[in-house]
Amino acid sequence: MQSTTDLNLRSFVQYDEKSHFPIQNLPLGVFEEQGKKRVGVRIGDMVLDLALLERRGFFPSLPELFNTSTLNSFLAVGRPVWTEVRATVSRLLRDDEAELRDNIELRDKALIPVENITMHMPVAIGDYTDFYSSREHATNVGTMFRGKEDALMPNWLHLPVAYHGRSSSVVLSGTPIRRPKGQVQIGSQENPVFTASRYLDFELEMGFFIGPGSELGYPIPVNSASDHIFGMVLVNDWSARDIQKWEYQPLGPFNAKNFATSISPWVVPLDALEPFHCKGPEQSPRPLPYLQAGGDMAYDIKLEVYLQNSLISQSNFKFMYWNILQQLAHHTITGCNVNPGDMMASGTISAPEETGYGSLLELTWKGTKSLVLESGEQRKFLQDDDTVTFTGWCQGQGYRVGFGEVTGKIIPALE
Amino acid sequence: MQSTTDLNLRSFVQYDEKSHFPIQNLPLGVFEEQGKKRVGVRIGDMVLDLALLERRGFFPSLPELFNTSTLNSFLAVGRPVWTEVRATVSRLLRDDEAELRDNIELRDKALIPVENITMHMPVAIGDYTDFYSSREHATNVGTMFRGKEDALMPNWLHLPVAYHGRSSSVVLSGTPIRRPKGQVQIGSQENPVFTASRYLDFELEMGFFIGPGSELGYPIPVNSASDHIFGMVLVNDWSARDIQKWEYQPLGPFNAKNFATSISPWVVPLDALEPFHCKGPEQSPRPLPYLQAGGDMAYDIKLEVYLQNSLISQSNFKFMYWNILQQLAHHTITGCNVNPGDMMASGTISAPEETGYGSLLELTWKGTKSLVLESGEQRKFLQDDDTVTFTGWCQGQGYRVGFGEVTGKIIPALE
Repeated sequence: MQSTTDLNLRSFVQYDEKSHFPIQNLPLGVFEEQGKKRVGVRIGDMVLDLALLERRGFFPSLPELFNTSTLNSFLAVGRPVWTEVRATVSRLLRDDEAELRDNIELRDKALIPVENITMHMPVAIGDYTDFYSSREHATNVGTMFRGKEDALMPNWLHLPVAYHGRSSSVVLSGTPIRRPKGQVQIGSQENPVFTASRYLDFELEMGFFIGPGSELGYPIPVNSASDHIFGMVLVNDWSARDIQKWEYQPLGPFNAKNFATSISPWVVPLDALEPFHCKGPEQSPRPLPYLQAGGDMAYDIKLEVYLQNSLISQSNFKFMYWNILQQLAHHTITGCNVNPGDMMASGTISAPEETGYGSLLELTWKGTKSLVLESGEQRKFLQDDDTVTFTGWCQGQGYRVGFGEVTGKIIPALE
Repeated sequence: MQSTTDLNLRSFVQYDEKSHFPIQNLPLGVFEEQGKKRVGVRIGDMVLDLALLERRGFFPSLPELFNTSTLNSFLAVGRPVWTEVRATVSRLLRDDEAELRDNIELRDKALIPVENITMHMPVAIGDYTDFYSSREHATNVGTMFRGKEDALMPNWLHLPVAYHGRSSSVVLSGTPIRRPKGQVQIGSQENPVFTASRYLDFELEMGFFIGPGSELGYPIPVNSASDHIFGMVLVNDWSARDIQKWEYQPLGPFNAKNFATSISPWVVPLDALEPFHCKGPEQSPRPLPYLQAGGDMAYDIKLEVYLQNSLISQSNFKFMYWNILQQLAHHTITGCNVNPGDMMASGTISAPEETGYGSLLELTWKGTKSLVLESGEQRKFLQDDDTVTFTGWCQGQGYRVGFGEVTGKIIPALE
C-alpha cells in the first residue's frame, strides 16, 4: 500500500501547490451543511462528508463515528482505526482510483465546497492544559519580569512547565473576542482599579488532542505517548497582560487567560506530519529518564502571525524545547488520567530572533517600542477592531501540509 | 406552604438527631442499584429513587431529569425547577402526608436502604477551579515559604485568588489514592530526582457546582451569582508538597495536584443551607464594586478532619474570607463562561487556631513537628495505607444538615 504521505500522490480534486489541504494532509473537522453537523475531511477547497461515506458502507468494520457533532468518538478509538480511515479516504481521493472519482452521483453529494458549509468546534474539550515549552519565550518573559539573571526558573530545563487552562472558553477561529475587564494595578498605586484590559495580547501556540485516554494512577510512558495523540491545531491563547501581572502570584494566570482561547477548525493528524519530523533543540541538562524520548520528535512547522494583514512574526514549531511526547509523559507521570478530547497547548512559540517572537509582549518588549503595520499604524498592544490571524504549514516538495488559520477580531469591552 | 428547612418538619423515615440527612437536607446524588444508575435523594439511611417517582408521574411539568447517570441535566434547569422538586420531595417524605407514607408498594420500591446501593460521581465535571480563599491558610503557607512579612501577596485582599484545576482526576469518596511520583529537589542539590512523593498531604476544602451556565463575554453579577449555584460537597484536594515546591514557579501547581481530588457523593442544595448563613470575616480594604455582595453570605458549616480515625483538625467554612458569590463573580468578570456541572472549590479552609488548620503542611508546620494520633503513632505527612476522612455539617436545633463524608486511603506508588 502506498504511504498516505507520499509526495507523488495526486487527487482528482484540484488545488494548487500552496493549498494547505492536499491529499497528503487529510485533516478532520466538524462541519454543518443544511442544518446538520457531521465529521468531514478537508481536501483543497472541498469537504469530504465522512458521515455520508459511512452511511454508504465505506467503513464496514467500524462503529458509527462520523454522524455526530464532535470528533470525540473518533479520537477515542485509537490509531488502528485512524490509520484505516485515513487509508480509505486517501484511496478514495486519489486520481488513479475510479471508485469515487467516476461515481458522479456520490461525488456530487460527498464533496461539498467549503463556501457552502459552516465549521464548528471539532472537539468537546474535557480538560485544557497549557504548557510553557519555548525556551525563547520563557527567557524573554522572565527577563522582562525578573531580570536577565533569573529569567529561567531553576525547574525550567528539567521539566515542561504547564498550568491547567479553562476549557469552557476555548472557541473556534472566527469567534469575536471581547476585551475583558478586570483588576489591574496602575503605576505605583497601592490599590488596583477595575478597567477594561489595556494590554490585550495574543500568544502564538499550537495544541494537540488526546485520543484514547489513560487510567487514573497509571502514567503514559514517553515512548507510547504518540498512541494517545491524534493531531494538532493552531491555538491563540489570548492574554490580558495587565490583569496577569496583578493576579498571577502565587498560583499562576487565571482571569488573564480565562476569557478566550481560539483554535483552528481542522485537526491535522500526526500521521500527516510524519515527513516533517526534525531534531528539536539540544536538551541540556539531560532530562530524567521518564522524559527521554528517542528520535527526532520535533516538527518543522512554519508559523506566521498577521495583525491587520501585516505579517508581524515568523516562527516555527521546531523551536519548542519540550516536545509533545515529553509533555504528555510529564503531565501523566503522577498518574493523572487523560480523556479523549483533552487539549494540550504548547505555550507561546517564540523564535530565537526578534522577528519571530510569539506575542506582542515580546515583540514590543513590554510596550517599550511600537510595531509599525503596513498601513503605517502603530501598535503596542491590541486595539478594538484589530484582527489577529495565525497560519502554519509544513513545506513538502511541491506541496504543503497546512493548518489553515486561526483568526479573531477584538470587540470592545462591555459598557 | 411550609418552608422545606423548617426545624419542625418530621419525616416518616426514621433517623436520629445526629443524622446528616434529615428532611431539612434532601441532598441529591447518583446511585446504582441492580446495575442501573439514576438520581436519588438521601433521607436518613435511605435513598429516595427520583427516577421511579418521575416515571410514576410525580413531576408532571418537568422534562426527564432523573433517569440518568449524572445531575447535569438537573443542574442546567435552574432554581425554579430545583425549588419545585425540593418542595415535592419534602412533601412526600413528611410524616403528616399520606401519599407516599401509606403507599406500601411505592414506599418499598422508592425508598432503598443505603447498604443496597453504590454511589457514583454525582456530576460530569466540565471545568474545575480551585480558589485560595482562606486568609489563615494563605497566611500560613506564605509565612512558611516567603516569611511573615510577605506572607500575603499584595493582590490577596483585593481578589479571590484561584487557579484552574484538573477535572479528569476528580474522584468519588472512597476511591483509593495512589501516591504520585514526580520530580522533587532534595536539600540543596541542584538537580531534581525522580521519586515517589515523600510529602503527601490533604487539603480540607468544600466545592460548589454550577447550575445554569453563562454566555461567553458576559460576567455573572455578584448579586445574581446564587442563581447559578446549586449546591455543595466536601472536597479533598490531595497535594504532593515536594513536587509542588519544585514545580510551582511561575505558573502555579500542576503535577502536585493533578493526580487526584476527592469529593463527597451527596450534593447539598444551597436551599438547605439557607438557615445557616452567617457573617463572614470583615473585608478590609473594601472590595471593588463587582465583588460587593450584600448580606451575610458565609455559611456556618463545622468541618472535621480524621487521620486513621484520629480527629486532627476542626475548622469551619465560615472562616473563608471570600464567599462563593464573590468567587463566581470574580471568575466570570472577564466574560469567562461557566457550564452546568463546573466545580469550584474553596481552597484549604484553615481556622485561625492551630487546632483547625486544614492541611498537614500547616498542622506540622512544614514537617517541623509531628502529629500524635490516638494510636500513639506520629505523622508529619501521609504514609501508605493512611486513611483521611473529612466530615462537615450545619448544626440546627435538634437536627443537622450534613455533607456525610469524603474519604480516601493512600495506596503505595507504582513500582
